[in-house]
Amino acid sequence: MPLDLAVLVFDLLGTFAFAISGALLAVQKGFDVVGSLLLASLTGLGGGVIRDLLLDQGVPNAFAEPLYLVPVVLAVLIVLVGLVHEGRLHRTLLVFDALGLATFCVMGATIAHTAGLNPVAAVLLGVTTAVGGGAMRDVVANRVPQIVDPDGVYATPTFLGAGLAVLLLELELFGAPAAVAVALLVFAARLLAVVRGWRLPLASMRPADRRAARDDGAAAG
Amino acid sequence: MPLDLAVLVFDLLGTFAFAISGALLAVQKGFDVVGSLLLASLTGLGGGVIRDLLLDQGVPNAFAEPLYLVPVVLAVLIVLVGLVHEGRLHRTLLVFDALGLATFCVMGATIAHTAGLNPVAAVLLGVTTAVGGGAMRDVVANRVPQIVDPDGVYATPTFLGAGLAVLLLELELFGAPAAVAVALLVFAARLLAVVRGWRLPLASMRPADRRAARDDGAAAG
Amino acid sequence: MPLDLAVLVFDLLGTFAFAISGALLAVQKGFDVVGSLLLASLTGLGGGVIRDLLLDQGVPNAFAEPLYLVPVVLAVLIVLVGLVHEGRLHRTLLVFDALGLATFCVMGATIAHTAGLNPVAAVLLGVTTAVGGGAMRDVVANRVPQIVDPDGVYATPTFLGAGLAVLLLELELFGAPAAVAVALLVFAARLLAVVRGWRLPLASMRPADRRAARDDGAAAG
Repeated sequence: MPLDLAVLVFDLLGTFAFAISGALLAVQKGFDVVGSLLLASLTGLGGGVIRDLLLDQGVPNAFAEPLYLVPVVLAVLIVLVGLVHEGRLHRTLLVFDALGLATFCVMGATIAHTAGLNPVAAVLLGVTTAVGGGAMRDVVANRVPQIVDPDGVYATPTFLGAGLAVLLLELELFGAPAAVAVALLVFAARLLAVVRGWRLPLASMRPADRRAARDDGAAAG
Repeated sequence: MPLDLAVLVFDLLGTFAFAISGALLAVQKGFDVVGSLLLASLTGLGGGVIRDLLLDQGVPNAFAEPLYLVPVVLAVLIVLVGLVHEGRLHRTLLVFDALGLATFCVMGATIAHTAGLNPVAAVLLGVTTAVGGGAMRDVVANRVPQIVDPDGVYATPTFLGAGLAVLLLELELFGAPAAVAVALLVFAARLLAVVRGWRLPLASMRPADRRAARDDGAAAG
Repeated sequence: MPLDLAVLVFDLLGTFAFAISGALLAVQKGFDVVGSLLLASLTGLGGGVIRDLLLDQGVPNAFAEPLYLVPVVLAVLIVLVGLVHEGRLHRTLLVFDALGLATFCVMGATIAHTAGLNPVAAVLLGVTTAVGGGAMRDVVANRVPQIVDPDGVYATPTFLGAGLAVLLLELELFGAPAAVAVALLVFAARLLAVVRGWRLPLASMRPADRRAARDDGAAAG
């Protein structure tokens, strides 16, 4: 499979996964079916649109290429008829979100690197692509953004995925198989983070700040 | 009236209508007059700026052309002196928002089509232009976005308006009179949706999801 | 110091100041260290990215130039080890935010003017650059945006700063010393506004609206 086609397939897969997560959140929030379409579009296409705006290479793919609507509409329909739904553990949204994260951090970094950005910028753009759509989904649905998911690290696996993709690109070892492998690694890392409750150190090591954060958590819990 | 001038007049009218809705929300939220100016700018100019960023054709009109500030400043002043205000039925904001929706979905689609986008993309850009400014207004003012308005369908009329505009453009039947007619249709559809309480099916047909949404609504009500 | 180098130094200083404010908010919200990095990036780089997107001149500096990561990472580390923290008066975030405001309104206006925008647009772009990063920080952290800070006027000093910078640029009296002077003026105006509780008239002069705003304030207080 040539890299161009692989990029498209990957990008559509990530779009589908994030669109499912958007449509599921629309169900949770009691949106109607057009609201679901809008939230699924924002989530599925948002990260890629931000990426394309930042790369400044004409009209973003999501608007220039009608093909991108297929996974979005498909996701809305699948959720509408109940083929995919939130189970008792409320983990379905999370699994699809993780799949979107995994594909988009690799794709964003690859597309940015191919566009000629330096390696550091390519990693950043990969992370931005991965977390951008979900962040807009959560902001519009008035939900605490998953970037700060208390269940386990969220953005960290995308740094690893984008970093690995750029490293392999620099070493000229990148291709469709490597992309799939890195994405699977990110996907597994994110799910393991939730299942095992992996957490990172807090943003401050000051005892007073840590106490305040703990008290807030207790009050919110 | 040549189409170029008609586009400008329409765009300024939509900007004015959305700016009024932003300034009214600023009053409701107790903002000061500069806060009102910022929220009116974001609402009135936001949709067009998103449209111009996505079309990637240089500096967005709202920044390149100082004329766009006139309707925004006018709207802030009109609300400041109380010429337009929320009546007992809290419907004034809604009426101006509907006028903005109606003009911007037609304008967004027309400008995108003229820029050479394919018909599907032109419709999407019309919808994005129409709902973008209002969504940013609601997010910044920390209000549940009207995209999911429980009073009646919100985004659906803009799909119809943008779709009709693109259809007429494709058939070469579009011009200023057609633009006015389509916009009036969207405006009427949105207001009727609120008055009659038109709603669409929910985002999921699963009985369990519908029950959960109903319970949430009851708890919120 | 040539203006180009001065622009870079100023831009990095503003990035650092806003990044500190983002990292401090991350501590307040109990984010982990990667969440702090993301919020600090969004706050420190967000205004400049919006500015560069609007000017449509290729990949935004923050992504094209890895140097911009230095102040962000530095800010996160400084907050992590507790060198900068919120004191008893919760004013540290505010002081760094004011420093970011002051530098970014001058820089945004200067860069926009240099890019050939008309004076009015250059002022608007300066204000947008200054308030954009902080607004995104507050929206993502689910906090009432500081644009409507009840402690004192927030955006108004940036209008003055951007306006003065553009005036001096038009008069060909602008340079690094003038930029520092205008930024210090904005910084002082913002801090004085908070200390003295400077407020502007509300967004409506109607007695009924003012009563409603007062009642809301009383209910919220």
